[in-house]
Amino acid sequence: MVTTQRRAERARQVADGLRQRIVAGEVGDLLPGERALGEWFGASRNVVREALGLLRDEGLVERRQGVGTLVVRPKYGHGLDRLTGLAEALEGHGEVVNEVRTAETVAAPPSVAERLGLTAGEEVVHLERVRRLGGAPLSLDSTYLVADLGIPLLGKDLAHRDLFALLEETNGIRLGRAEVEVHAVSAGPDTAALLDVAPGTAVFALDRLTRLPDGRPVDAEWLHIRADRLTLRATLQRGAA
Amino acid sequence: MVTTQRRAERARQVADGLRQRIVAGEVGDLLPGERALGEWFGASRNVVREALGLLRDEGLVERRQGVGTLVVRPKYGHGLDRLTGLAEALEGHGEVVNEVRTAETVAAPPSVAERLGLTAGEEVVHLERVRRLGGAPLSLDSTYLVADLGIPLLGKDLAHRDLFALLEETNGIRLGRAEVEVHAVSAGPDTAALLDVAPGTAVFALDRLTRLPDGRPVDAEWLHIRADRLTLRATLQRGAA
Repeated sequence: MVTTQRRAERARQVADGLRQRIVAGEVGDLLPGERALGEWFGASRNVVREALGLLRDEGLVERRQGVGTLVVRPKYGHGLDRLTGLAEALEGHGEVVNEVRTAETVAAPPSVAERLGLTAGEEVVHLERVRRLGGAPLSLDSTYLVADLGIPLLGKDLAHRDLFALLEETNGIRLGRAEVEVHAVSAGPDTAALLDVAPGTAVFALDRLTRLPDGRPVDAEWLHIRADRLTLRATLQRGAA
Repeated sequence: MVTTQRRAERARQVADGLRQRIVAGEVGDLLPGERALGEWFGASRNVVREALGLLRDEGLVERRQGVGTLVVRPKYGHGLDRLTGLAEALEGHGEVVNEVRTAETVAAPPSVAERLGLTAGEEVVHLERVRRLGGAPLSLDSTYLVADLGIPLLGKDLAHRDLFALLEETNGIRLGRAEVEVHAVSAGPDTAALLDVAPGTAVFALDRLTRLPDGRPVDAEWLHIRADRLTLRATLQRGAA
């Protein structure tokens, strides 16, 4: 006898395996039928149906009457191995276009000043951009830059360029490293509206602090990323025990 | 005039900044009052109140009558720089205890066989564990191991040890690297029940494939991680452009 609980457990396992295959690009736009998926995962059709329901709730697939189950859109991987901008990471997948919502100098509140190693009230550049690929939002980036590197960017092509590349080119510098902290959160009303998802949808929230090679913090960012469109990818080495 | 939309935007920014500070351990268990937070972030009390509401929805803080706003529990960082087990990563924060739900040999369904480079029907070891720290769940790990390395583990202390360390010690081997893909998803019913969160709560889902130094895949895992208890942390280097 397959209990409801046991079926939910199997459905979770099948959904996990199928998500991984979809993201790896190992299935096409149209998923195999329920019977074939059941054989692939060693699961009953009821389990497969429940698993597809979980992936539908994530916005990854949709059921089309008379056609089958379709992958809604490709999910792109953004590497956590190396510090790259989104447009660099998505090269070859289409052009990332940024809707620039804010680009101005402001007096740094204590919270931002501390993060950038400044005194409260010092001038910083605040940029806020919704980044899109193929028309639909990928991420919402709220960025504070130190004035000496940020002000020269205000006249530049913020709509079509990655900040990292612009910072380096415009100022003739190289960035060093960034510390990143990744959260998974439910989108609040403002994030949901700007990213065009339902409030409460699971999204990534990232804190990223980018430094020059000498350690000076120059770029404090808070990003919200649509988790139905991007995954974060890393290769980890086993170090000394 | 501060519009509702503008207030929501500021609240999102304050919530992002406050989340980062809480996770960095820069505030104590009891948050500063609304007025002090407002000064810190250069925001009105209404904005601060709305930001605290967003963090409450994430399960990060709670409002206690007559006391103030409390951090519900510390949020731990799990490094994405190096391949470590959870207990290794949380060393010093308390003992990770695993509830072993499944520990058995099974015939690999095609989905698992492909991931491990095996033929469908070959024997593999399936482990499923709910991992707890301080009593509350941190993660749900569903793991498939190749038989030669996995079977020797079945008699071992799976309740108190990391799999990586057990695999290495028991088999006299070293693990090499792992490819990790991180998703943010809404917890389905089974995940929610096992992790003791409300269905629909944002959680991390990780696919991780661990290999020996010669590249042979030996450990295929699907993890669900409570995002109110763990963040994922990385330091990224800027490579060649």
